[in-house]
Amino acid sequence: MQALVLERQNELSLRDIDIVEELGPHDVRIDVKTVGVCGSDVHYYTHGRIGPFVVDAPMVLGHEAAGVIAEVGSAVTHLAVGDRVCMEPGIPNPRGRATQLGLYNLDPDVRFWATPPIHGVLRPSVVHPAQFTFKVPDNVSLGEAALVEPLAVGMHAATKAKVKPGDVAVVLGAGTIGIVTALSALAAGCSRVFITDVAQPKLDLAATLGAITPVNIATENLADVINAATAGWGADIVLEASGNAKAAASVFDVLCPGGCVVYIGMPGGPIAYDVVAAQIKEARVEHVFRYAHVYPRCLALMGSGQLNVKPLITETYAFADSIAAFDYAKAPKPTSVKVQIEL
Amino acid sequence: MQALVLERQNELSLRDIDIVEELGPHDVRIDVKTVGVCGSDVHYYTHGRIGPFVVDAPMVLGHEAAGVIAEVGSAVTHLAVGDRVCMEPGIPNPRGRATQLGLYNLDPDVRFWATPPIHGVLRPSVVHPAQFTFKVPDNVSLGEAALVEPLAVGMHAATKAKVKPGDVAVVLGAGTIGIVTALSALAAGCSRVFITDVAQPKLDLAATLGAITPVNIATENLADVINAATAGWGADIVLEASGNAKAAASVFDVLCPGGCVVYIGMPGGPIAYDVVAAQIKEARVEHVFRYAHVYPRCLALMGSGQLNVKPLITETYAFADSIAAFDYAKAPKPTSVKVQIEL
Amino acid sequence: MQALVLERQNELSLRDIDIVEELGPHDVRIDVKTVGVCGSDVHYYTHGRIGPFVVDAPMVLGHEAAGVIAEVGSAVTHLAVGDRVCMEPGIPNPRGRATQLGLYNLDPDVRFWATPPIHGVLRPSVVHPAQFTFKVPDNVSLGEAALVEPLAVGMHAATKAKVKPGDVAVVLGAGTIGIVTALSALAAGCSRVFITDVAQPKLDLAATLGAITPVNIATENLADVINAATAGWGADIVLEASGNAKAAASVFDVLCPGGCVVYIGMPGGPIAYDVVAAQIKEARVEHVFRYAHVYPRCLALMGSGQLNVKPLITETYAFADSIAAFDYAKAPKPTSVKVQIEL
Amino acid sequence: MQALVLERQNELSLRDIDIVEELGPHDVRIDVKTVGVCGSDVHYYTHGRIGPFVVDAPMVLGHEAAGVIAEVGSAVTHLAVGDRVCMEPGIPNPRGRATQLGLYNLDPDVRFWATPPIHGVLRPSVVHPAQFTFKVPDNVSLGEAALVEPLAVGMHAATKAKVKPGDVAVVLGAGTIGIVTALSALAAGCSRVFITDVAQPKLDLAATLGAITPVNIATENLADVINAATAGWGADIVLEASGNAKAAASVFDVLCPGGCVVYIGMPGGPIAYDVVAAQIKEARVEHVFRYAHVYPRCLALMGSGQLNVKPLITETYAFADSIAAFDYAKAPKPTSVKVQIEL
Repeated sequence: MQALVLERQNELSLRDIDIVEELGPHDVRIDVKTVGVCGSDVHYYTHGRIGPFVVDAPMVLGHEAAGVIAEVGSAVTHLAVGDRVCMEPGIPNPRGRATQLGLYNLDPDVRFWATPPIHGVLRPSVVHPAQFTFKVPDNVSLGEAALVEPLAVGMHAATKAKVKPGDVAVVLGAGTIGIVTALSALAAGCSRVFITDVAQPKLDLAATLGAITPVNIATENLADVINAATAGWGADIVLEASGNAKAAASVFDVLCPGGCVVYIGMPGGPIAYDVVAAQIKEARVEHVFRYAHVYPRCLALMGSGQLNVKPLITETYAFADSIAAFDYAKAPKPTSVKVQIEL
Repeated sequence: MQALVLERQNELSLRDIDIVEELGPHDVRIDVKTVGVCGSDVHYYTHGRIGPFVVDAPMVLGHEAAGVIAEVGSAVTHLAVGDRVCMEPGIPNPRGRATQLGLYNLDPDVRFWATPPIHGVLRPSVVHPAQFTFKVPDNVSLGEAALVEPLAVGMHAATKAKVKPGDVAVVLGAGTIGIVTALSALAAGCSRVFITDVAQPKLDLAATLGAITPVNIATENLADVINAATAGWGADIVLEASGNAKAAASVFDVLCPGGCVVYIGMPGGPIAYDVVAAQIKEARVEHVFRYAHVYPRCLALMGSGQLNVKPLITETYAFADSIAAFDYAKAPKPTSVKVQIEL
Repeated sequence: MQALVLERQNELSLRDIDIVEELGPHDVRIDVKTVGVCGSDVHYYTHGRIGPFVVDAPMVLGHEAAGVIAEVGSAVTHLAVGDRVCMEPGIPNPRGRATQLGLYNLDPDVRFWATPPIHGVLRPSVVHPAQFTFKVPDNVSLGEAALVEPLAVGMHAATKAKVKPGDVAVVLGAGTIGIVTALSALAAGCSRVFITDVAQPKLDLAATLGAITPVNIATENLADVINAATAGWGADIVLEASGNAKAAASVFDVLCPGGCVVYIGMPGGPIAYDVVAAQIKEARVEHVFRYAHVYPRCLALMGSGQLNVKPLITETYAFADSIAAFDYAKAPKPTSVKVQIEL
Repeated sequence: MQALVLERQNELSLRDIDIVEELGPHDVRIDVKTVGVCGSDVHYYTHGRIGPFVVDAPMVLGHEAAGVIAEVGSAVTHLAVGDRVCMEPGIPNPRGRATQLGLYNLDPDVRFWATPPIHGVLRPSVVHPAQFTFKVPDNVSLGEAALVEPLAVGMHAATKAKVKPGDVAVVLGAGTIGIVTALSALAAGCSRVFITDVAQPKLDLAATLGAITPVNIATENLADVINAATAGWGADIVLEASGNAKAAASVFDVLCPGGCVVYIGMPGGPIAYDVVAAQIKEARVEHVFRYAHVYPRCLALMGSGQLNVKPLITETYAFADSIAAFDYAKAPKPTSVKVQIEL
């Protein structure tokens, strides 16, 4: 079958590739229909690696995927041919200790699409465990369904934060992950979310998505804004989604006593962390790695209209134009959030 | 000053009453503007008592109140004359053990408006601790602010439930408390709420308020509905707001494994509780008594547009017509949710 | 191989039985060495059924087991031949929704030893998933290791209670489960445990096991005892281990505001549950079904000397005398706690 | 009355001082009997300040205190003259927002003994709110009771960690706070605690106090020790009690997936914090500031024999020798843990 193959750093081909996947009794075969382009896909394209994960053999890209069931394994009962679905891209070892505890995203043996040496899904068809394949509500498009993957990151963070209804949240960073995190925080019960960035177009977009107040930290002082909004108390929750070391070090400045910080972004190295600042507020600091258990939650919220990701799909390419899509995604317009490819 | 006084069972007067309230340094004096009529007010009117609380001396009714600050104590810093506010009606003993733990609603010494022998606030003015007086956002009316009191019951229940984003909730009972509980569950992150009753007009109203699915249990089987909606898994959260013993005994029928039940309604006597049914699902069962810490959360959600209680104010009376308001509230139209009195 | 077979109600044989068990790559084969006699084993013997589980074909009894590894599957890395181990008797469906969430004890497809139609382990050898087989510390005997099974019930309950260090607990019922629950509550951080029963010998034994105060409710008023011990505040935790409907209905009498109840015992039918009594204290009520994730925790506590179950092994029989052991267990001495059979 | 007064940096006097304290209705007057010498007392002595808190007027030292009730206010009901008690040294603003939430230790207006400008209690008598004065069990000495203050720090940390029974903990630092933290972790349900230091005498002492394994990190590799003890999984809980920036940065090296870190020690500046290392394990990181709600818990555990601090009282001085006590505490023997002064 034809696939978008990363041959090596900086070299993509749309070409035939031989991937043999047997359909086990607990698996489904999915016709892939929509795949989002993720920053990690682009990073493999431009750098050939992410940290210890090196592309040293041709690898199909893509892990934000939705499609239609083409075939079901003999033991699968909750899915049928023709069902519209989206898929979690990581498959953990079912017998791992973390998996057994329900922390399957922390299993060190997880196999994750488009993370070397595992092929991604920018290809017409894939076999996947039914357990990690989720039916999409009728009123949710496959484009939105493919967006569940990045959304899941924000939703997992908002879940870890244990939002209480009415909480005030601050999201640091208005990239794709920052924006889905802001939407997740609102969906999780926050009364309002302040989102920061220095890129005004991203902030302008975020401001259209609900009770979200943009703060351009190039010109505004975040602590002043939060103090004014909370009568000096601080934000209940700070969600760090920028990966910027300086932002990550500043989280306690705007946090309320007893508040919660969640680190989502991955800084390039250690940050300067002020333990005493965290102690004076008895901060709870959570850290998230991908997500677990949130796909059906995202789909339910999208299906009921409580959460809308449609405005985040800013560009769509045909599969035949996949390479162009990636070249665009290397340096997209400032208003771009999510580029998707349709098969 | 003139007040709505319950002289004894079945006898209300709108008459002068002498209430001397000194303004302490930590208090504010509030000009009362809107007071909602609560089922408990009506019950004192028609029965002269609620359980052990007996009206054996004339008592002013009313505890769902909003108004405007008329005077502030010398040590009050966060409120000013002219501020629009609503008030928590219960004042705990600040040195009580439950209060110290943050569970001030469980303090046995709490003094609660319109609970004998404490006067309520259907009167032009009241002195109250600034600590339990909350500023109302500009875009929230005093009628909505007075609705925070019943809303707080639902919000406290939804907070105790520890909703995870995307949860499915069932609310048993579509009275005022059932409806504010459904709104609270949605605001707290549920993807959808199923609400039950046998009164179709209440269900019809509820259905207009968001991702709420009415279930008339006179004609529909709730377990079938929930099984169909959740692929047989069950609801994550069941909020019992009917106070009906049979409903309260049925909560585990529709609950998912690991799910949570919250008992809000107060049945007249012990219920038939199926421990084994709860064990098989390892249900967590929470019980709520009034509320704590949720007033500012309700106001924040209303101010940001995440929660709207306006449709619940179905009738408004002038203070001069207070007795008529109570007589109406004894047997309101089926579509009535909340009767309010304006001063 | 020879096994203790329940042929039908009231009829046990120690006889050859043909059980073919293949060793999969993730399994181990264990030489069974010690098996405890559980109340459920005895109940199948005397009644032929427990609720919906009916013994309609010969079934090997026994599920509280420890032994020595005889053979390991090709993919097993954490266990070796000769390791002393004990085993969780239930094997869940690894793909079940509850299992995936970490709630594997709630999986409806779980296969549990000596629960029809699954054979138990009163036989020389058994094949079991390595994932549910746990290495026993050197200083813990196989008799103690076999006691992990009932201990796990108490430990799971104490874990669900979320004991805070210094909590005061009440355990209702001083049978085997009540006693292991009391030990678990202490191991989990309680400062002291009050345990109730009407059987004085059991209370006398319990009183020798640590900071445990026996309360014979035939002659003492429990609420008075708890009020005196807690200055009227109440116990932080009430663990219902009697299965008695009246005891189960009384839990809120001795609970503190904000306290936690755990239902462990399984009453024969619905109990009279006082919702309002629970609301006034905002009780959290947990329900447990068997256990999950606690075997290694029990073994760690036993290995470090923080918890000692040795005094609970009151009688030991040879395998050849298994039927005598069961006949004794039908009506044991009042001081008997746990009868074990050694192979 | 005579008191131990820090006149200025490096100058102590035992002299008369005029402190007028009125006994309010909710207060008690306590004859002080035992006061422990804390590192902060010694630091004020040797440096004249701790961070922003500067001794710019003579101040009585001492805040780890126990004594006997000499007089009770008119509204006090739970204490009587002659009661043996210990006292929380911090008094929060009862109307503060953090206090109302139950987080009274985070109240910025807290008045704390021996923190400028508040006098400490190395003096014969003190008036204190009954609410923060706790009766000592008969079998607990006043020396032990005075040790509740530092113990409370460890107990608060162990409580925040939400220990599950059987957890393995690592405590970094074997000073007084490290040792009380290790005892607290065990009392809270840990099966065993590994404690680190480079001072062998402190480690040797710690090893005598229960299921505590000393690790001298001058000669041993902590990660190797923990990996060996946990089959490579890691410790469930890491409690940082050294205040050393390098130790504080190393916490994730030995933590298990889903584990918890608590920062107790206060490093002198920002630490190098590895966000990604925390993310891969989805660490929960808690921070503690003093303590709240744990005094009665400590006393209960000491009274029931579940926790013993007697071995930590290594030196006792008479009040007349207070200055000598402080001079000793500036450079104590390596085996010294707690110096106390008796009045």
